[in-house]
Amino acid sequence: MGKTSRVEEDFQDYLHEMDAYREVMMLTYWDMRTKIPKKGVDQRSEVIGFLAEKVHQLETSEKMKNFIDALRDADNEIVRKSIEECEETYHKSSKIPTNEYKEYVKLQSKSESVWQEARKKADFTLFQPYLEQLVEYNKKFANYWGYEKNIYDALLHHFEPGITTEILDGIFPKLRDSITDLLGKIEGSMDKPDPSILKGHFPKENQEAFTIEILKQIGYDFESGRLDETIHPFEITLNRNDVRITTRYDEEDFRMAVFGTIHEGGHALYEQNINASLARTPLATGTSMGIHESQSLFWENIISRSKGFWQNNYDLFKSYAPNHFQHVVLEDFYRAINEVKPSFIRIEADELTYPLHIMIRYELEKGLINGDFAVKDLPGLWNEKMVDYLGIEPSTDREGVLQDIHWSGGDFGYFPSYALGYMYAAQFHQTMSQELDIDKLLSSGNFKPIKEWLTKNIHQYGKMKKPLELVEDVTKEKLNAEHLIRYLTKKYTDIYSL
Amino acid sequence: MGKTSRVEEDFQDYLHEMDAYREVMMLTYWDMRTKIPKKGVDQRSEVIGFLAEKVHQLETSEKMKNFIDALRDADNEIVRKSIEECEETYHKSSKIPTNEYKEYVKLQSKSESVWQEARKKADFTLFQPYLEQLVEYNKKFANYWGYEKNIYDALLHHFEPGITTEILDGIFPKLRDSITDLLGKIEGSMDKPDPSILKGHFPKENQEAFTIEILKQIGYDFESGRLDETIHPFEITLNRNDVRITTRYDEEDFRMAVFGTIHEGGHALYEQNINASLARTPLATGTSMGIHESQSLFWENIISRSKGFWQNNYDLFKSYAPNHFQHVVLEDFYRAINEVKPSFIRIEADELTYPLHIMIRYELEKGLINGDFAVKDLPGLWNEKMVDYLGIEPSTDREGVLQDIHWSGGDFGYFPSYALGYMYAAQFHQTMSQELDIDKLLSSGNFKPIKEWLTKNIHQYGKMKKPLELVEDVTKEKLNAEHLIRYLTKKYTDIYSL
Repeated sequence: MGKTSRVEEDFQDYLHEMDAYREVMMLTYWDMRTKIPKKGVDQRSEVIGFLAEKVHQLETSEKMKNFIDALRDADNEIVRKSIEECEETYHKSSKIPTNEYKEYVKLQSKSESVWQEARKKADFTLFQPYLEQLVEYNKKFANYWGYEKNIYDALLHHFEPGITTEILDGIFPKLRDSITDLLGKIEGSMDKPDPSILKGHFPKENQEAFTIEILKQIGYDFESGRLDETIHPFEITLNRNDVRITTRYDEEDFRMAVFGTIHEGGHALYEQNINASLARTPLATGTSMGIHESQSLFWENIISRSKGFWQNNYDLFKSYAPNHFQHVVLEDFYRAINEVKPSFIRIEADELTYPLHIMIRYELEKGLINGDFAVKDLPGLWNEKMVDYLGIEPSTDREGVLQDIHWSGGDFGYFPSYALGYMYAAQFHQTMSQELDIDKLLSSGNFKPIKEWLTKNIHQYGKMKKPLELVEDVTKEKLNAEHLIRYLTKKYTDIYSL
Repeated sequence: MGKTSRVEEDFQDYLHEMDAYREVMMLTYWDMRTKIPKKGVDQRSEVIGFLAEKVHQLETSEKMKNFIDALRDADNEIVRKSIEECEETYHKSSKIPTNEYKEYVKLQSKSESVWQEARKKADFTLFQPYLEQLVEYNKKFANYWGYEKNIYDALLHHFEPGITTEILDGIFPKLRDSITDLLGKIEGSMDKPDPSILKGHFPKENQEAFTIEILKQIGYDFESGRLDETIHPFEITLNRNDVRITTRYDEEDFRMAVFGTIHEGGHALYEQNINASLARTPLATGTSMGIHESQSLFWENIISRSKGFWQNNYDLFKSYAPNHFQHVVLEDFYRAINEVKPSFIRIEADELTYPLHIMIRYELEKGLINGDFAVKDLPGLWNEKMVDYLGIEPSTDREGVLQDIHWSGGDFGYFPSYALGYMYAAQFHQTMSQELDIDKLLSSGNFKPIKEWLTKNIHQYGKMKKPLELVEDVTKEKLNAEHLIRYLTKKYTDIYSL
């Protein structure tokens, strides 16, 4: 007890080595997406391949197996939980035959470029044979990994351990009904916001300056991170003291950069505030895709689309947009940034309709992996469901089944994390509001207690707690969609005078 | 013949692995100096240590020894020359006992921070004990590595293979005499340029835009590189398609960024134009420090401080400095940027007095390594030599013996490369001017034939030719300081109406 054994020391060295590779791999990705000159990409791709191979070797080595066997019951909790993570990865990798995995990696890379072509041409038939293979591989892998009730659970587990089709099927219908009910009322409302007041030219430099001020307000530490520009915004963790985010500026629509940056800032706050004792272990990152998304959505939607937030920041915002918004009153501005309107593209969807986009994808994925229908039937099914859930029908597959990159990379089971993130966020918010007067804090610009609450209850643990364990520890109840439903109902009842 | 043997293929894979580590190490350095957030530095330093260790292991492995033995006489010239490079590194590393090397690395890192402190306080006694140890280690290493006539040659070889004290002692006195003779005449000139006309505020953005245009003119490929801002400008090669440079802007003195960027651009042109067949081998970089410096100085001094260059670019320059230089005629501008004036700081020295700074350092290094005097005598000797060579005496060690970082990193034998670079550049220039009408090309802004000449004669070879071999191949004579002397005499006779 207390004393670190020799094998624990060796394991720590081994983790440090893995972590060094991980850090340079993250730096390499970041550079590829933000700074690399065009012609440097080819060789860099080979370098990334080399690093990925090294990490894979370390994850699946005989030495790793020995560490797992020796330290599975270690006294030190960080060692034990690190071993748990390593074991999960070890088994996931070692159960897939090497040749099959290599073929799959090639297929992924080819499929992404084919998907890009297919989307450009709005021609699903180009992508179809690749998607068919990707689905087949995922079914095989799911069978290698094993599952209890539904084959799709094996894939869900990859992104959101503990979540099953049984849980989702118990939650989604109720959530869907509440949202469509609210949507119906909103569409019938006689008191709608006017989004046209948001239009206007907003120079990039000013947007950047404003978002930097907001990031500082919410507690993003620029001494442990930086903000750059990319086409597809992301957050990336080199280490807990180097958590970088990127954003995209649209000079004709500030919402892209402002809400997008806060979203990535929410991810970054999670990573910057993981406990230092977990540094350089596999535990030093967010515990799941869904919990990560709960943090970004909490800041993006619950905080930065709230009235309190703008009560404090609207004047600042207007100071960066000297030629606009001067005659727009706060209430109209607040209502406009919360306009609800069914639309085709998921990433452009409003807060209310977004979960419907996720449910459509969930049902299609689950059906595909279970063999309920064929890949060729996807476009038709997609459009049917869009009509069914959102009341609109895409005119091309570009704004339909071909819009998302995920499937082209073989990522099945990922989409539900987005909807789970919404539900987690609302549930955390509910608990937080019992302890903090959130509206008052927001309208006075005092984010510190909010950030500290999140660190104390969520961030610090990294992967020490599994997602559902974390939800129960924090909120003293199981995952419960009611909180999201209540939050949405309250918000839109006010905005649309329902 | 022609067919690649199994061991050659394995060697190639091994080189690719080494090169992948090298590339990520370079990326890591670049990021550390340009982009990393403050708190990310600590862990990053450990990552760099890890990568350096990996590279060192690969360079000195048993496997490497086997490759060297098996392929020393390979038919393929690229393989053979790669082996030569590897063998050089292998022996250099393996001759130093591991413990001694580790101690030395620690000493280097400690010494640099002590030097910084000492320089800040202008107190040589702080740095003295560290410098003493660094000198002792370098003497030991020189003895391990071996030499023919002078122990200092072993260190020179490290930076400039083929160059010896005998060669330098044969060249420097004549060069010194010519420069001091010219300097005397210049000081007596009644027709001096007026550098005060160069003063004026020049916004950073405009300086950047102008230097980018110049970089494009000289053929720097922005699709294979990028320009960033740093305190200490540098060029760094990730691979031949990703050659990055940095610069520093002084809004009150444009010369820093303009000539500094062209200098780094000259280094970058070398690296960008190495033959593709050498990619991912140890040959895909400049052949020595001196030849590298010949390329940067060629562009910085011979080209961009020439009259022809400004005949073509002065209007462009003025367009970026709308409030200055409008009443400054080209001739006055040209003369002002070429003002000669003895000064204390090497990196701020003009083109004529610069080599004198180098000779002082050369004599001191040679004396130290040969034990002709003690480290404690350095400050006094430095100041004596400054009076002797340049006629001025530093009032503190900050502007004297403590000004350069090199010795604090244990780099002895490096300084002569700067003076060699000058001589190589002038000698190459002499040959080039027999084949190209350089003045005409410059004044018409046609840099392409110049760049192509450099690529054909110098750049493409990378490390396939040793520095002196390259000089002889290109200029059909041995290293000859007369070319530099003639170039300087002609230039300053014109500028100062001597």
